[in-house]
Amino acid sequence: MHLTYLLPAPMHVTPLGETEMRRRATLLGEWAGESTRITVAAVDNGPASVESAYEEYLAIPAMGTALRRAERSGTDAIILGCFGDPGLDGLREIAVKPVVGPAGAAMALACTLGHRFSVVTVADGVRPLLRRLAWETGVLPALCEIRSVELSVLAINTDHDAAYAALRTECERALDATEADTLVLGCMSMGFLGSAERLSTELGVPVVNPIRAAVHHAQALHRMGLAPSRRAYRRPAALADDAGDTSLLHQAAGPLEVTP
Amino acid sequence: MHLTYLLPAPMHVTPLGETEMRRRATLLGEWAGESTRITVAAVDNGPASVESAYEEYLAIPAMGTALRRAERSGTDAIILGCFGDPGLDGLREIAVKPVVGPAGAAMALACTLGHRFSVVTVADGVRPLLRRLAWETGVLPALCEIRSVELSVLAINTDHDAAYAALRTECERALDATEADTLVLGCMSMGFLGSAERLSTELGVPVVNPIRAAVHHAQALHRMGLAPSRRAYRRPAALADDAGDTSLLHQAAGPLEVTP
Amino acid sequence: MHLTYLLPAPMHVTPLGETEMRRRATLLGEWAGESTRITVAAVDNGPASVESAYEEYLAIPAMGTALRRAERSGTDAIILGCFGDPGLDGLREIAVKPVVGPAGAAMALACTLGHRFSVVTVADGVRPLLRRLAWETGVLPALCEIRSVELSVLAINTDHDAAYAALRTECERALDATEADTLVLGCMSMGFLGSAERLSTELGVPVVNPIRAAVHHAQALHRMGLAPSRRAYRRPAALADDAGDTSLLHQAAGPLEVTP
Amino acid sequence: MHLTYLLPAPMHVTPLGETEMRRRATLLGEWAGESTRITVAAVDNGPASVESAYEEYLAIPAMGTALRRAERSGTDAIILGCFGDPGLDGLREIAVKPVVGPAGAAMALACTLGHRFSVVTVADGVRPLLRRLAWETGVLPALCEIRSVELSVLAINTDHDAAYAALRTECERALDATEADTLVLGCMSMGFLGSAERLSTELGVPVVNPIRAAVHHAQALHRMGLAPSRRAYRRPAALADDAGDTSLLHQAAGPLEVTP
Amino acid sequence: MHLTYLLPAPMHVTPLGETEMRRRATLLGEWAGESTRITVAAVDNGPASVESAYEEYLAIPAMGTALRRAERSGTDAIILGCFGDPGLDGLREIAVKPVVGPAGAAMALACTLGHRFSVVTVADGVRPLLRRLAWETGVLPALCEIRSVELSVLAINTDHDAAYAALRTECERALDATEADTLVLGCMSMGFLGSAERLSTELGVPVVNPIRAAVHHAQALHRMGLAPSRRAYRRPAALADDAGDTSLLHQAAGPLEVTP
Amino acid sequence: MHLTYLLPAPMHVTPLGETEMRRRATLLGEWAGESTRITVAAVDNGPASVESAYEEYLAIPAMGTALRRAERSGTDAIILGCFGDPGLDGLREIAVKPVVGPAGAAMALACTLGHRFSVVTVADGVRPLLRRLAWETGVLPALCEIRSVELSVLAINTDHDAAYAALRTECERALDATEADTLVLGCMSMGFLGSAERLSTELGVPVVNPIRAAVHHAQALHRMGLAPSRRAYRRPAALADDAGDTSLLHQAAGPLEVTP
Repeated sequence: MHLTYLLPAPMHVTPLGETEMRRRATLLGEWAGESTRITVAAVDNGPASVESAYEEYLAIPAMGTALRRAERSGTDAIILGCFGDPGLDGLREIAVKPVVGPAGAAMALACTLGHRFSVVTVADGVRPLLRRLAWETGVLPALCEIRSVELSVLAINTDHDAAYAALRTECERALDATEADTLVLGCMSMGFLGSAERLSTELGVPVVNPIRAAVHHAQALHRMGLAPSRRAYRRPAALADDAGDTSLLHQAAGPLEVTP
Repeated sequence: MHLTYLLPAPMHVTPLGETEMRRRATLLGEWAGESTRITVAAVDNGPASVESAYEEYLAIPAMGTALRRAERSGTDAIILGCFGDPGLDGLREIAVKPVVGPAGAAMALACTLGHRFSVVTVADGVRPLLRRLAWETGVLPALCEIRSVELSVLAINTDHDAAYAALRTECERALDATEADTLVLGCMSMGFLGSAERLSTELGVPVVNPIRAAVHHAQALHRMGLAPSRRAYRRPAALADDAGDTSLLHQAAGPLEVTP
Repeated sequence: MHLTYLLPAPMHVTPLGETEMRRRATLLGEWAGESTRITVAAVDNGPASVESAYEEYLAIPAMGTALRRAERSGTDAIILGCFGDPGLDGLREIAVKPVVGPAGAAMALACTLGHRFSVVTVADGVRPLLRRLAWETGVLPALCEIRSVELSVLAINTDHDAAYAALRTECERALDATEADTLVLGCMSMGFLGSAERLSTELGVPVVNPIRAAVHHAQALHRMGLAPSRRAYRRPAALADDAGDTSLLHQAAGPLEVTP
Repeated sequence: MHLTYLLPAPMHVTPLGETEMRRRATLLGEWAGESTRITVAAVDNGPASVESAYEEYLAIPAMGTALRRAERSGTDAIILGCFGDPGLDGLREIAVKPVVGPAGAAMALACTLGHRFSVVTVADGVRPLLRRLAWETGVLPALCEIRSVELSVLAINTDHDAAYAALRTECERALDATEADTLVLGCMSMGFLGSAERLSTELGVPVVNPIRAAVHHAQALHRMGLAPSRRAYRRPAALADDAGDTSLLHQAAGPLEVTP
Repeated sequence: MHLTYLLPAPMHVTPLGETEMRRRATLLGEWAGESTRITVAAVDNGPASVESAYEEYLAIPAMGTALRRAERSGTDAIILGCFGDPGLDGLREIAVKPVVGPAGAAMALACTLGHRFSVVTVADGVRPLLRRLAWETGVLPALCEIRSVELSVLAINTDHDAAYAALRTECERALDATEADTLVLGCMSMGFLGSAERLSTELGVPVVNPIRAAVHHAQALHRMGLAPSRRAYRRPAALADDAGDTSLLHQAAGPLEVTP
Repeated sequence: MHLTYLLPAPMHVTPLGETEMRRRATLLGEWAGESTRITVAAVDNGPASVESAYEEYLAIPAMGTALRRAERSGTDAIILGCFGDPGLDGLREIAVKPVVGPAGAAMALACTLGHRFSVVTVADGVRPLLRRLAWETGVLPALCEIRSVELSVLAINTDHDAAYAALRTECERALDATEADTLVLGCMSMGFLGSAERLSTELGVPVVNPIRAAVHHAQALHRMGLAPSRRAYRRPAALADDAGDTSLLHQAAGPLEVTP
């Protein structure tokens, strides 16, 4: 199968650059195995990283365009390249192929490994977003706690060893603080550190890498012939069959303000 | 005070046009009373109406720009002109002034009028979005049911009498179907029909007009000197103080795809 | 409009006396603005303050009488002068005009300002009562924690500076202890300290004064022509139209005990 | 042990009269068994029956007085004679002996007999009150539905056969409508019809008589040396040790109204 | 009535032996009172004690056999002799007489004594099992916390004084840690320490002995003529009326493994 | 990898026999793909099928023995061959390799495909069991409804066409009755009908085959190096490393009954 990992950022023009895209493609290829072809796709404009709700909203329209481009190129499924599952419901409305949100996939997997799981993510500020994702997925009762390392996405990508150390410390705290028996890494950059296995071994509890959870989720859907429910994600009435957002968007010469 | 009603659509270039914008401004002025100055602001590009999650996402970036424009013009508060409260969390992150979501305001008001409320909205497809808003607001236990008239926003605006008849029928069904004791109109166009009072009288239960709920909510916040919590809606780190999304957005010459 | 603030206590014969009633009336007048006429009404018998469930029950019958007196005097709405919303459901059953509970109004407002709120109240003993109010209002999921300053109502009214200091300390603890992003003062005497604005500024989060929340709530209902749902609060069948509780109460010469 | 069944009404001056009190005492004696001494106590003033929240509030102060009288007479426990558990938390605050609410006792018992139970009560209007009781008891997840026969308490007591027929019909509907596997009679007058056993046999599911549930609950607490938690129901600070509500109530010559 | 206390273990061949069985029978007799005849029955094979889910599953088939034996001997009700309520739903399916689970009975009782209760049990490892029991009973909202003394069942039975000291310490911690107002001993061996009354007195909150809760529960059901709902616990279709599990079990000469 | 599908029944001595075991092995092989080796293992004694809680309990001890046998034979993971996930927590306690419950795996997958799912199973009697599984998995909020075809497992296996027709009818009803957007087949025999794909196509919503969900779940865990959390499923202290249940079970010459 052909799997597209869709970055919400134009990573090629950020400090991480095409090099990091290639590194991620290589890891995805290893994790997916030989029978799956991987493409890592970056949008042409968007935020450098998604660390707030507003940046998430800014990213979505370009992701919609990129998603349709990937579908036209013959992809079999799309993984959203951000643990916030940005625009998941909206993108599923316009998609023909399965769209997988890594947070949903990882939290659903974590549910099956124990009684309650905790998420370790980048910053306290995204905790409400992640709690909403757990609610949307329907697994909120299994979510124990969300903790953060308080590192920026850039910092995680810049010094992998320091990031691993911070992550491990916070995972240990998570296990000390509550009855959580399973952990989920709540950030794709954490996932691409390649440290979930090491953490699982060192801490003695399953630590879910959301990227791998998403990859295997997409593979399973493909094998099973399943896709997200059209009854849940209805195609917008005004969306033309073969066009982009132009069928949905209206353009004025400028804004207008009126008063009574 | 100065209140801006922010449309997610470039209504002036849609069939409803500037005329409808003026009609809405007049109603808002009547509902707000003399001490409040009203502006109805339309974005320069966006969907004609918001009837799916994807259209909601398409609308938000232009709303962010319009919100900052309104703040620079001296508005005291902004009401989002759509019952989906599009981008509420993200827009609050970048806003200096209070941003009011009509769904949140109307559902919070409905909570105080009885034991459980139902929402009557335009289409079945938006029920998951509205349920998520109830959850986000924290009032899901008080939400009884979401029903729809299955009319497009355009249809509601085109034939007010037919829309009122359909709305009344569905409200009656809502009261027959469950123990709900309070109703909320789940669409701004329904609110601008001006029919909530008539429905309240005819049906003998309070029927909340979300527009008026939002207006009085904004007025109350202004009088009380309150604003949404910055602890809940943190300003994006990368957002420059006096600039637009340019500080957040990175533009590439084009998208990029890489493989392992 | 004419708004009656209904005290559950005969405050004029308690240590606080008519002076405190006038002070409260003045503050209410300032908060309500010029277009609203304020009356502060004290019952003719009841507890000095409401700091337990039993005192709350003792207060309600006299509040019913006073509520009907206020309605006959032409009031447009009644605010219950206690954060316990004493007898709210029962008083709404017999009322013709809107009855507003300040806890319900304040918690519904808090819901719209962030993700989760905490309440800071007088004593640990009333925490179950307040949690029940949050449940009744339908907003329990948004309630993070209830904390108390462990001061009596009398102490709060006797030394405003000490009360403010204690309140501020407990509010700070509330923000340290949890993710709560919004605070609600859980006692009317705290509200009449006039300190919510000061706390909002000093702590950097919205601190809701329940009195002002109730006043604006009553004004909004009046403007919108809404009242609590008769379907939720049915008029007692035995209640005569123009009489007091005499139509409901039966008086015996004394109690009676029988055995098998 | 000595058990007091505390009526919220001055039943001896209502149409049911002392005869019905004696009939109830006899049934209670049979149900309790020989080792328990029963007193049925009626208050000296109150509503004829409790069919609304306001009537419930009117009943409570006289119940407080009667409860203390029963304690001085040496009772070992008090059962509230109304399925609304009127004033349960407040009465427990002032009581020295265990106070048992029949709704709480019956619903807790029903929880142990199957997966979910439904309540069949007198009138739709009390459904919110009963749902709140289920929440207060902590058993809301086990409550399936509340249905009513829409008969007044007087009607139930006047024609026992008609009442039984109506009750049986509604119980059958309850079993048809949902997965409920256990029923609770939601009214003491229904319980004193003596029909729970007949319904259990005829319908093939356990039908809980709240009176008997309360009697055995009181006996169990007495045998086990347990009482409701003082940590949950704190004694009002102002309550004098040996006095009535006079230590809590302040009496003015009349009400007072002030304006700013 | 005749009450059978059914041990999940062949206690007579464990270190505790027949002596402990007799001690338990004596205590049960005292707690049940003169009108109830007690039998303590041990199975012929099973785990020494139930301290994991797997041991619980190992115990159940022999308990089914013993339950039917007790029914044939004329017992009126069966109490499961383990706080895990092992196999409660399954055993109720095959039983004719009421089967009482002590955890369900104790937690339902605790619900009626305050707002929230905590359980103090033997080991952290059984907390998920006990939380599931609270959910199954329908009382999860009233469960505050589950704590453990981290002593084995054998240790509790070997040194009663040390066990009591550990138990008291953990109960005190439970009250310090949360708002819980009522405690439940979460292990039958703790119950047979006979310390619940002493703890209630020393700690000032009700401490529920699950054994006594179960005994009085069984007595109440017997007096009321109630049994668990057959609609909740359907008899297995293949179960022969007068036979054991032989009607349900199929025996092969050995296991079989096949491959595609 | 090597995957063992563990039947809770000695299917080789039931009417379905070794033939059905081979048919299932073949289907599992097709679904798993070439890189996975499949074994279908039947226990040596147990119920013919699991259609009640008691039969489930009867099946578990032999499953424990078979699980250890499969581990000694080098299996990499075990799938429980029953939608009731019989003994999942207990079996995970004694297992070294991942144990997958098909209900948990299927419901977790369904969570990611829409907003709410319904389960269509064999008989109404197992609905409480399946609801408990949804709760245990942590996905209860996403479970809309459980419906049944009211066919025995044997009937489903005897006439595949009739079973498919009944299944399709009930799936249609499930979609008519609620907002559910995704369906889960709640019985392994239904899964082996091979009809999930046909139903997905005919009904236009994803219909999850629990067998395939479990297979891909096991494969994903294997690829990711993950196993259920030992912190959630602790190894019984008394379990010997290389032995069977003999280390846990004590055998007496017979049962024992004692009286006070």
